[in-house]
Amino acid sequence: MTPIYSERRDQLKELLQSEGLQGALITSPANVFYFTGFHSDPHERFMGLLLRTDGSPEILFVPALDLSAAEEASDVQNLISISDDELPFEKIKGAAGSLSGKLGIEGSVFSYERYQLLSGAYPELEVQDVGALAARLRLKKSPEELDKLRTAIRLIEEVMEGAARKIRVGMTESELTAELEFLMRKVGADGPSFSTMVLAGEKAALPHGNPGERRFRSGDVILIDMGVVKDGYCSDITRTFVVGEASAETRKIYDIVLKSTMAGIEASREGAAFADIDRASRDVIAEAGYGEYFNNRVGHGVGIEVHEAPSVHGHNEDKAAPGQVFTIEPGIYIPGKIGVRIEDMVFIGEDRKAEVLTSFPRELRIVGSEG
Amino acid sequence: MTPIYSERRDQLKELLQSEGLQGALITSPANVFYFTGFHSDPHERFMGLLLRTDGSPEILFVPALDLSAAEEASDVQNLISISDDELPFEKIKGAAGSLSGKLGIEGSVFSYERYQLLSGAYPELEVQDVGALAARLRLKKSPEELDKLRTAIRLIEEVMEGAARKIRVGMTESELTAELEFLMRKVGADGPSFSTMVLAGEKAALPHGNPGERRFRSGDVILIDMGVVKDGYCSDITRTFVVGEASAETRKIYDIVLKSTMAGIEASREGAAFADIDRASRDVIAEAGYGEYFNNRVGHGVGIEVHEAPSVHGHNEDKAAPGQVFTIEPGIYIPGKIGVRIEDMVFIGEDRKAEVLTSFPRELRIVGSEG
Repeated sequence: MTPIYSERRDQLKELLQSEGLQGALITSPANVFYFTGFHSDPHERFMGLLLRTDGSPEILFVPALDLSAAEEASDVQNLISISDDELPFEKIKGAAGSLSGKLGIEGSVFSYERYQLLSGAYPELEVQDVGALAARLRLKKSPEELDKLRTAIRLIEEVMEGAARKIRVGMTESELTAELEFLMRKVGADGPSFSTMVLAGEKAALPHGNPGERRFRSGDVILIDMGVVKDGYCSDITRTFVVGEASAETRKIYDIVLKSTMAGIEASREGAAFADIDRASRDVIAEAGYGEYFNNRVGHGVGIEVHEAPSVHGHNEDKAAPGQVFTIEPGIYIPGKIGVRIEDMVFIGEDRKAEVLTSFPRELRIVGSEG
Repeated sequence: MTPIYSERRDQLKELLQSEGLQGALITSPANVFYFTGFHSDPHERFMGLLLRTDGSPEILFVPALDLSAAEEASDVQNLISISDDELPFEKIKGAAGSLSGKLGIEGSVFSYERYQLLSGAYPELEVQDVGALAARLRLKKSPEELDKLRTAIRLIEEVMEGAARKIRVGMTESELTAELEFLMRKVGADGPSFSTMVLAGEKAALPHGNPGERRFRSGDVILIDMGVVKDGYCSDITRTFVVGEASAETRKIYDIVLKSTMAGIEASREGAAFADIDRASRDVIAEAGYGEYFNNRVGHGVGIEVHEAPSVHGHNEDKAAPGQVFTIEPGIYIPGKIGVRIEDMVFIGEDRKAEVLTSFPRELRIVGSEG
C-alpha cells in the first residue's frame, strides 16, 4: 500500500485545522476514493470517512456488504461496518464518541436529511461546507493521476476510432451506442464514465439527448460524446462526424466550432482566468453570428469524476494552475436542425502552457460512405 | 400528452396541502420524471419542479442545455432555463416571487449547500422533508408502470439467458460483462439500470464487487446481478450459475439461498410487514447456520429507480400493499470463498398474493461445460 492516501488525509487535516475545524465527515464516493483508495458507490447506504484534527483515529464507515472490499482497498485502520438495519448516526456516535465545535461536510453531497440526523445526534456541532477544500486538493493531479487520465483517454480514443469506422447509413443511434460500450469493455475500460451519447442529425441539437431509434442518413452529423472509467479515472471526448457528404452549411458550422475549440485550447494556460478561457472560445461562435446557439459553459474538470472542478464558465475568475485537467467543448446547437460539438481534454503543465491530452484528429471526417 | 403527469402533480399538491405546506421544490431526477414526464440527469446542474398549493403556476426549472428536450417531454407550461453562468436560486426568486411558510424538499437528495442557498434567498421560509410523500405516490405502480417494469424484466431475462449460454472456462468477468451490456442494447434496452455485476468464485462473496480480470474456472460460481432501464423503468435480477460442475458444498449453499428466496416470496403478500418478509427469508439462512454470512437487507423497491421504496429490512414495520414492486434477494457470502444470491422481483396484486414478475428459472444451472 503506497502512503499516498494517508498523505492526502494529512493534507486535508491540515487544511481543516487551518480553518479552525475539528474534523470532517467525508461522504462523497469520489472523495472517499481519493482519501482512502476505496472506490464504491454505496447508493442510498451510508459511507463516510471521519477525520479529526486532534489526533483521534481516522474511521471509515462502510455498508456491511462492502466491508471485505473496503478492507482490501483501503489503508484506514479503523473500518466500521453498518448493516441495513442499523442507524448510521448512532453507529458514528458509538464509534467516535462526542464531537463538538465545527465539523466539515461536503455541502453539495451531504443531504438535508443527513444534516438533520447529524444535528440530532450532535446538537452542539456546527457544520461547515468543506467541499471546496477537498476539491482544491483534487484539482492538482499528481503524475500518477495524470497517467491514469492518459490511459482513460487512450482507451476512449480507440473506441472513437471504432465509432468512425462503424457508422453506416441505416444504423440507429442505439445500435452504435451498443457497439461502442462493448468496445469500451473490449479495450479494457472498467465502463463508461457517463451515459454514452450518440445523436444523429437534428437530434444532435439536444446537448443531453439520449440515443434512440433515429437512423443515420446521408448528410447527417453524428455527434458522439463519451468517456470511460479506468482504475478510477475518467475520460471525456466529443467528436462530430458527418455521414456520406457534408453540406456547405454543415461545413461552415463545423468550422466555427473547430475554431472555437482551438481558441479555448489556445487560451488555456497557467494564470488564465477560466472566465477568459470561456470567453475566448465563446467569442468565436458569437462573432460568427451563432451566439444564441451556444448556451452552456465551455468546459469542466475531469478526474475521479467526469465533472469536477474547475468549471470553465464566464463567472469563474479562478485562474488555471499547473496540474489541472479540464475539457474545452464548445458547440453550436440549432434546435430541430443540427448540433456540432468538439471536445478535448487539456492539462496545464509546469511550463505554463496547456498540453492537449486528446490526440484524436479534430478535422471534419466524412464517415460511412460505403454504407 | 396523457394527463397522467398533471394528475400526479395534483395528487402531490393535495398531500402537500394536507400537511400544511405552501408547496414543494422537487429536484430528484426520478421525481421530476414521475411528475413531469421529463427524464434527465442534470448532474451538478440545477433542475427543479416548483409546485404551490395556492394555485400559483407550476414551474419547471431546467439547465439551459436541456430546454428543448424538456419542452418536448414535459407538459408543464412554465419552463425556465438556467444557464451555467446563472445562479439557480436567483432565477427561482425572479420567476416565483416571494415564498413563505413551509416549502417541501426531498431531504435525501436536497443538498446542504442548496438548503443554505434556499435559506439565503428566502430567509422566512421553513423547509420540510417531503421525500416520503413523493415516495408514497410512487410506491403504488399503475398498470402502465407495471407494463414498463415487465418489459424491463423481459429484456434482462433475455440477457440472462445469453449469459448462461456464453459462460466458458477461461473467460474473464470483464469479457462477459462487455457481452452482456452489448446484449442489453441489442435486445432494445436503453442501458443498464446499474453497474453490471459479474463475479466469479471467491469474488462473488463481495456483494458489491466489480467485474475484473478474474477468469472463470471449472467449479466456480458465477454471480450475475444486472438490470436494464427501458422507457424510464428498471429491472433487477440476480442468478448464480456454476461452471462445469458443482461441489457438494456449493450445492448445499445454493439450496439454502434458493429456499430463502422462496420463503421471502412466499411471505410477500398484502398486509405483511416488510420486517416479517425480511425475517422469513433470513431465518432460512440463519437456521442453516449461515446467518453470519448474510448481512444485508432482503430486498428493495424497483421502479423509476433501481433502488426505491419499500425497503425490505428487519426494522421496516410498513405493510406490503397492492401495486408495490420489490426484490427478494437473499444471499450467502463467505469471504474469500464463495457467494450465492438469487434475486427475483415481486408485485403485490389486488388479490393479496405476490406475483413473481421474474420468470427466469431459479434452479441451479451448470453452464460452460463445453468450455
